[in-house]
Amino acid sequence: MSVTDDLLANNADYAANFNGPLPLPPAKGVAVVACMDARINVYGVLGLQEGEAHVIRNAGGVITDDEIRSLAISQRLLGTTEIILIHHTDCGMLTFTDDDFKKSIQDDTGIKPQWSAEAFGDLDTDVRQSIARIKANPFVPNKDSIRGFVFDVATGKLNEVS
Amino acid sequence: MSVTDDLLANNADYAANFNGPLPLPPAKGVAVVACMDARINVYGVLGLQEGEAHVIRNAGGVITDDEIRSLAISQRLLGTTEIILIHHTDCGMLTFTDDDFKKSIQDDTGIKPQWSAEAFGDLDTDVRQSIARIKANPFVPNKDSIRGFVFDVATGKLNEVS
Repeated sequence: MSVTDDLLANNADYAANFNGPLPLPPAKGVAVVACMDARINVYGVLGLQEGEAHVIRNAGGVITDDEIRSLAISQRLLGTTEIILIHHTDCGMLTFTDDDFKKSIQDDTGIKPQWSAEAFGDLDTDVRQSIARIKANPFVPNKDSIRGFVFDVATGKLNEVS
Repeated sequence: MSVTDDLLANNADYAANFNGPLPLPPAKGVAVVACMDARINVYGVLGLQEGEAHVIRNAGGVITDDEIRSLAISQRLLGTTEIILIHHTDCGMLTFTDDDFKKSIQDDTGIKPQWSAEAFGDLDTDVRQSIARIKANPFVPNKDSIRGFVFDVATGKLNEVS
């Protein structure tokens, strides 16, 4: 049995108590962009219920073209107006540099990725960087409520970056 | 009060019952790539607990360079070996075309996005497309367990795409 098989068994329990379908547009009009870190259960952290918010996640919770694509679809086609960014303490992205990571991939595969690894050295600075990238982008129309937070993996608390 | 403020109030309740910190590497060695759809509570759907799996999400649950970046970091730096892809029924990505969406943005802003919107016409075909993109990519090393599913938003059930 793989871990995937174990998780599929869990899904049977989830489905047994499931009430659907809910409407497609997020009921709370919010899109969350968070790090992929395993310790951030976004629905738990924000007390979200199924159907309430779009959740976009990647390594670092950074803003690249793909997050802009997702936010543009979220706002333009599905009516969200608020954005919540979540980075977190003890983030893996603080532990390496783009140059070293891409060099290690090049050494292993013979090919250097053409993308940035998006590593960063300071949490608050990178939250502000993510907010700045959204604010500067022409494709995301609703920019009145873009707020960024650092999730503390020791306490479960969101601390806002001003 | 904005919705964001309401969700921050929820976070206080979450933190009051939180036990941390957990280790950084995902305990179950799994990375999930899922659509951002509000109705997919990934931790609930798979019965995941905090700390167990990386969760990567975007509009459609598609694989672009940013998901490859996240999967490369997940596998190479944090030891995951299995990948679970989750698309879902009633997906917004089935309701428009790249050309129409990008034309509407160009009409609104004067600028045509340089990225693909990644809309698709068939769920199973797009799950297979996502698997094929990962399998063809040199930067993701662990490809022995890449399985794709369609989450049924009416029943809560994951149906595997073969």
